[in-house]
Amino acid sequence: MSRARPKTRRSLKTGLPPGTPVFVGEKKTEKVHIHYFDYNENQYVEKDAETVEECFPYRDKPSVTWINIDGLDNLEILQKIGDHFGVHPLVREDIVNTEQRPKLEDFGDYLLIVLKMLTLPNEAREIDVEQVSLLVGKNFVISFQERDDGDVFSVIRDRIRKNQGVIRKMGPDFLAYALIDAIVDHYFIILEISGEQLEGMEDTLIQDPSPEILQKLYALKRRLLFLRKSVWPLREVLGNLSREDAQMVKKHSRVYFKDINDHTVQILDNVETLRDMTAGLIDIYLSSISAKLNEVMKVLTIISTIFIPLSFIAGIYGMNFHFMPELNWHYGYAIVWVLMILVVMAMLFFFRKKKWI
Amino acid sequence: MSRARPKTRRSLKTGLPPGTPVFVGEKKTEKVHIHYFDYNENQYVEKDAETVEECFPYRDKPSVTWINIDGLDNLEILQKIGDHFGVHPLVREDIVNTEQRPKLEDFGDYLLIVLKMLTLPNEAREIDVEQVSLLVGKNFVISFQERDDGDVFSVIRDRIRKNQGVIRKMGPDFLAYALIDAIVDHYFIILEISGEQLEGMEDTLIQDPSPEILQKLYALKRRLLFLRKSVWPLREVLGNLSREDAQMVKKHSRVYFKDINDHTVQILDNVETLRDMTAGLIDIYLSSISAKLNEVMKVLTIISTIFIPLSFIAGIYGMNFHFMPELNWHYGYAIVWVLMILVVMAMLFFFRKKKWI
Amino acid sequence: MSRARPKTRRSLKTGLPPGTPVFVGEKKTEKVHIHYFDYNENQYVEKDAETVEECFPYRDKPSVTWINIDGLDNLEILQKIGDHFGVHPLVREDIVNTEQRPKLEDFGDYLLIVLKMLTLPNEAREIDVEQVSLLVGKNFVISFQERDDGDVFSVIRDRIRKNQGVIRKMGPDFLAYALIDAIVDHYFIILEISGEQLEGMEDTLIQDPSPEILQKLYALKRRLLFLRKSVWPLREVLGNLSREDAQMVKKHSRVYFKDINDHTVQILDNVETLRDMTAGLIDIYLSSISAKLNEVMKVLTIISTIFIPLSFIAGIYGMNFHFMPELNWHYGYAIVWVLMILVVMAMLFFFRKKKWI
Amino acid sequence: MSRARPKTRRSLKTGLPPGTPVFVGEKKTEKVHIHYFDYNENQYVEKDAETVEECFPYRDKPSVTWINIDGLDNLEILQKIGDHFGVHPLVREDIVNTEQRPKLEDFGDYLLIVLKMLTLPNEAREIDVEQVSLLVGKNFVISFQERDDGDVFSVIRDRIRKNQGVIRKMGPDFLAYALIDAIVDHYFIILEISGEQLEGMEDTLIQDPSPEILQKLYALKRRLLFLRKSVWPLREVLGNLSREDAQMVKKHSRVYFKDINDHTVQILDNVETLRDMTAGLIDIYLSSISAKLNEVMKVLTIISTIFIPLSFIAGIYGMNFHFMPELNWHYGYAIVWVLMILVVMAMLFFFRKKKWI
Amino acid sequence: MSRARPKTRRSLKTGLPPGTPVFVGEKKTEKVHIHYFDYNENQYVEKDAETVEECFPYRDKPSVTWINIDGLDNLEILQKIGDHFGVHPLVREDIVNTEQRPKLEDFGDYLLIVLKMLTLPNEAREIDVEQVSLLVGKNFVISFQERDDGDVFSVIRDRIRKNQGVIRKMGPDFLAYALIDAIVDHYFIILEISGEQLEGMEDTLIQDPSPEILQKLYALKRRLLFLRKSVWPLREVLGNLSREDAQMVKKHSRVYFKDINDHTVQILDNVETLRDMTAGLIDIYLSSISAKLNEVMKVLTIISTIFIPLSFIAGIYGMNFHFMPELNWHYGYAIVWVLMILVVMAMLFFFRKKKWI
Repeated sequence: MSRARPKTRRSLKTGLPPGTPVFVGEKKTEKVHIHYFDYNENQYVEKDAETVEECFPYRDKPSVTWINIDGLDNLEILQKIGDHFGVHPLVREDIVNTEQRPKLEDFGDYLLIVLKMLTLPNEAREIDVEQVSLLVGKNFVISFQERDDGDVFSVIRDRIRKNQGVIRKMGPDFLAYALIDAIVDHYFIILEISGEQLEGMEDTLIQDPSPEILQKLYALKRRLLFLRKSVWPLREVLGNLSREDAQMVKKHSRVYFKDINDHTVQILDNVETLRDMTAGLIDIYLSSISAKLNEVMKVLTIISTIFIPLSFIAGIYGMNFHFMPELNWHYGYAIVWVLMILVVMAMLFFFRKKKWI
Repeated sequence: MSRARPKTRRSLKTGLPPGTPVFVGEKKTEKVHIHYFDYNENQYVEKDAETVEECFPYRDKPSVTWINIDGLDNLEILQKIGDHFGVHPLVREDIVNTEQRPKLEDFGDYLLIVLKMLTLPNEAREIDVEQVSLLVGKNFVISFQERDDGDVFSVIRDRIRKNQGVIRKMGPDFLAYALIDAIVDHYFIILEISGEQLEGMEDTLIQDPSPEILQKLYALKRRLLFLRKSVWPLREVLGNLSREDAQMVKKHSRVYFKDINDHTVQILDNVETLRDMTAGLIDIYLSSISAKLNEVMKVLTIISTIFIPLSFIAGIYGMNFHFMPELNWHYGYAIVWVLMILVVMAMLFFFRKKKWI
Repeated sequence: MSRARPKTRRSLKTGLPPGTPVFVGEKKTEKVHIHYFDYNENQYVEKDAETVEECFPYRDKPSVTWINIDGLDNLEILQKIGDHFGVHPLVREDIVNTEQRPKLEDFGDYLLIVLKMLTLPNEAREIDVEQVSLLVGKNFVISFQERDDGDVFSVIRDRIRKNQGVIRKMGPDFLAYALIDAIVDHYFIILEISGEQLEGMEDTLIQDPSPEILQKLYALKRRLLFLRKSVWPLREVLGNLSREDAQMVKKHSRVYFKDINDHTVQILDNVETLRDMTAGLIDIYLSSISAKLNEVMKVLTIISTIFIPLSFIAGIYGMNFHFMPELNWHYGYAIVWVLMILVVMAMLFFFRKKKWI
Repeated sequence: MSRARPKTRRSLKTGLPPGTPVFVGEKKTEKVHIHYFDYNENQYVEKDAETVEECFPYRDKPSVTWINIDGLDNLEILQKIGDHFGVHPLVREDIVNTEQRPKLEDFGDYLLIVLKMLTLPNEAREIDVEQVSLLVGKNFVISFQERDDGDVFSVIRDRIRKNQGVIRKMGPDFLAYALIDAIVDHYFIILEISGEQLEGMEDTLIQDPSPEILQKLYALKRRLLFLRKSVWPLREVLGNLSREDAQMVKKHSRVYFKDINDHTVQILDNVETLRDMTAGLIDIYLSSISAKLNEVMKVLTIISTIFIPLSFIAGIYGMNFHFMPELNWHYGYAIVWVLMILVVMAMLFFFRKKKWI
Repeated sequence: MSRARPKTRRSLKTGLPPGTPVFVGEKKTEKVHIHYFDYNENQYVEKDAETVEECFPYRDKPSVTWINIDGLDNLEILQKIGDHFGVHPLVREDIVNTEQRPKLEDFGDYLLIVLKMLTLPNEAREIDVEQVSLLVGKNFVISFQERDDGDVFSVIRDRIRKNQGVIRKMGPDFLAYALIDAIVDHYFIILEISGEQLEGMEDTLIQDPSPEILQKLYALKRRLLFLRKSVWPLREVLGNLSREDAQMVKKHSRVYFKDINDHTVQILDNVETLRDMTAGLIDIYLSSISAKLNEVMKVLTIISTIFIPLSFIAGIYGMNFHFMPELNWHYGYAIVWVLMILVVMAMLFFFRKKKWI
């Protein structure tokens, strides 16, 4: 499980010949898990494959084959797939290099689409990132994930099994669309959670501005930044898929890609709004800190300013001079009290005028 | 009534097949209300329809038909309209997904225009948003609104009834223009209200900078941000309508769309100005907080600096040493007073030199 | 006289049919004043017209006619001119809607140029804005101003009367150039005044940073913002006029428009410089406020830190315990003084080391 | 000597006919100084001309003529040159209007290049600006400078005299290149000086942050801003000269202009870096001011917090109640001392825990 | 070893004829070190050359020749290479001018690629920069480095020696790719180190915000800025190499350059993220300073506000008036204590209500 910050282990790759696949992510799975579908409008096959070779015969069938591979540690499997489906060595390297930006590469025979699958575990501050690579060919889709502990594709599997919607009637381009759509839909969930957290923070911020809330706000800001970084290049990817560039995408599928493209623009818009709101809350926090300081200082000033002159007066008549006429007056003590009360009243009047109390 | 922040319920849609219309807004209306006009230069028909099928015969008449639908809950009605007027499933989904950005989609036979109708209820801080979708065809306009509690289109209805201006002489593109213009005109009203509120805040800010005013300023900033977000994509929509791209828009109508386009640019300009002014007021607020702190500290410092030395002098002669010659001097007490007055005068001179008093 | 902030009265227009001219500015003139020139290289006619119809015969003469109209209240006059010179209804609306951005519209037969005439009255903080619209036709220029109380065109009138420069030899495009140039030249004056005010503020800022100066700086910033807003779209207008787009502009006049275009770029540059300087002064102001606070606090700290321990010592020997050996020492009092002086010296040494004194 | 701020005297020009040259700079030279070279690969002539007519015969010779004119006051000379070399009136105006932005104008027969020659006199804060205009024709270069007190071209003169490099073998385009290169090289010197000053300030900033250093930093920032403003439009000028646009620039000279273009990009890069560093130092200054305030407050708080309770204890036993049992205890005084020491130790422990001491 | 700031010695070059190579870097190496490879798929030659002429015969062989030159002081060697390989004089100047921006120049016969080799020595704050220039010809690559103390190319040498990967099968364009890739890979290492340092700082920042950490953060920010400055123009270089522009780059090599191009985009992305995180930490630092001040002030205020009134009460009964009835009361002293305890409790209650304790 990688974290939403640039913690690359790219240094492992320094100096290796290009095209050498090196898995730079953290070790994520014990065993590579291969699972595949083969379907057309009328029927479907679903199976967990023991070896990758099991899936190979489907390449030449006209039906749509979806091979999903969880875990990138076993470079041998990647090698075999690469050889069988005719994949360029640099593509293999891209698949295991989990520090990629989202991107689209069109190799004529097949497309490589690299995406980030984001999930926000409960109560977590940082987004959990998994890189998903899709190879979209004439009649197959091969998806690579980093881990085997659940993904956002189960809804797609159900739709294939139950023949919901049009998915079984369409080709691999539509399947790719459905997979990307499932990933993009999860971005909305992260946005929703972030929006709710922000509203919660807004309320506590006004009541009790603590330094912890500032750190939470910065964590949220960072998360939004990360989300933006993941979605921004996706826009270009989807833009290209919805135009006439990619041969693999049939004309009637383009409108679907255009639709997710609209979603990404909407996500970026909302990210911007949330970022602006976060920045605004940070400013409010900082100014409320200043306001608190002002209040503290006012209390100190009021107390000091009232009592310091009074103490001085008391100090005067605490002096031990032999000749101090006031000390012998009968009403001296009472007069001092009156004087003190006058001082206090003058001070209070002054503070009232300054609107401090 | 949705609020001006990303409070999506998009999560409801996660995993559904594309083209499944799901109303993600808050429940807004009890019953869907269908109302239609059919007019040409010479006559008009206006009616509340019980069922949506009532309106269908007008599709094939050469006169202009405007069907207005308030409420998006009843997906069945949408379904029927979609089938009758030949609308793409993704368009149906767009209409009910009220979290759309303003956009224009040209499907050849008809245009989909999505807009935000903004109103600012009295004394409210946040803008009330309603999504309006227009389907503009060869001889019809279908408008979809989220709610049934009044809209900004009543003036258009009056113009049709009274045959004011050129509206009855023109086609559905002009009707679409008039509807969009009515929506855009309301943005100006929001700007005017915001400008007035800002001026009001400017005055109270200088007299009495309270934390509440800061929150109001941030609320205003957020509102302007939201307004900007709603208008920005509209510029592109209107730009496209005023160019030769859209087949549905007749040549002599383009100048009208160009005119609203100028208005949106003007709105964006004014939004920027107001945002800059808001930012300026926030800065003035923050610096006036600092200035207040300075003033408080000055008072404390002046009082302390004057009385602490005096109290020290009094403290000296409050000591009980047996041998303190000054205590026995006849004028000792008077000399101490003179000394104290000199200290005060020196301090006052110092403060005057520092320009603190 | 409108002010440099978005104080629109656009709400008056809400819901009116497009092309309905409504004067949204403040009422500015009692009577519409019509004045015209008709000139060629050899002779000129100048007259105040009683009715607008007086000017109409000049339309068909080959000489250049310049009709200047002060005051936009009388919509009837506008109507007549519009009909006689064949002006599109939306143009009429643009002319009276004084909240326009500067713009250029090419209608083939004539050009509409909308500009802002800015003047900065003596001692005023805010710029005085007047919208000027120019209709440039084959052999006429019609200029519309909001008010009748003086404009920046008197120099042009003199040049026509005295046949200075090439103006009488050239066509209406050159006249339009001369009018725009006169307006743009006044922007430089505003820049000069602003620059001088800024320098004045810089000097007082360092000597005596008062909150008033901050407000002045923000007012200046706003003025520059406004100037920028007025000039920015002008660049595009002039850029179009200096290229081959506009049919109305003859080839040898383009170089003149290019020249004013250079001026607007220079104005924008200077505005940016002044804005940066203003921002810099605001920062200096804020940091000088902090520096002042520091100074105040240092004085308080020095005085308190010296006298509080001394008062404590005096307090000790002001106690009334029966058994306090020091009180009976013959040199007790002297020793206390020595002790106090040592404390003061230690403190001063400490402050010196901290570089506070 | 004009200063690096927009101190225009453009107001002198308001209302004058276009093409009227008015010298808007400050009076800079007593007498206009005309100096010329005429050279080819084999020989050269160098002379100070008494009258401008002296140079005119060289126009028709195939050798390269470089006329350098120091001082722009004498408009008559400009007039004569303009007439003899066929220069457009607006160009003449551009040459004397020393508030121009750097620009290139191609008139077919000749090029006008306007540049800023910047020098930074010793110990000066502000850059000294002089506008240099170059007219580059088929076999001549005419350079105009504002003043006669030394320029950056002496190295070029030496290279012509000594026939160093290829200058004598090349045409006027190469001479123009050499002149521009000499000017651009001086920008590097200003950058170097600024960089050194910045490093110097960085050191003193950390040791002793005084308000003066803040003003110096802002002055530096302004200087960099000004440098950027002078170089930015130059990039476009040189970009155009290095492309195929300008007929006057021979193909093999383009690579030289491309080279200076690279230099300007490098200058802009360095300006950005220095600006970022300046901004960083300003931030460090501001935060060190806050840190100082914190330190001052800590000292005050520590002293106050220790002695105020002690003084209170002493005050208690300074009361004159008849019945105060402690006063009669034999060890009363000693016990009070013990109590006070305990208070001090508790306070010190508290401060230590808070990491204030 | 040059430092990551603009410390040019360009002034050395002022006024020299163009094409004069002047080494502006700091003296970096004692002796120029020439080392070369000549290889094809089957064999390779590797040698340290005594004189540069040794390498010249390889120019005409079909095998790939890689000449690496460490040290730019000896301009004679550069001269000889330039003459033998037909290099333009301005290129020679570019190679020794180590203040170049990364750039690509295509001279038809050969390419000039200028890059920055960045290394971050242990515990160092500033990046160590070395300029690397590559001349890529039909069958040779000549690389120039500033120093002889180790570079990032040793891995490439090993791959040539051991015939790893495809390097020996490919041409000079692939070798150039491998060299650039090695340099770019080191940028990742700097990013990793910076990311780790940032995380370390984040932890100490929260525990103990000291001014030193602020300086470290600004140093890091500067480093990232510098990294960005080095990588940004590289993007354009690699973009050009991966498109069809450069004749020297064979079609099947373009995909490799596209791959490094992706890496640079990724680096820029990460730089942005790290910069944002740094800015966030700086903000947290500043606000924690404010929070500390608040805490200090609270302690001062609490102590003062409690004890100042108590001292005043004690002061009252320390007065020496002859007639003070309370002094004679038997329980006077006890009552005063009770009064004081009540005052303390009231204060504590007040502070509790204000949430200060």
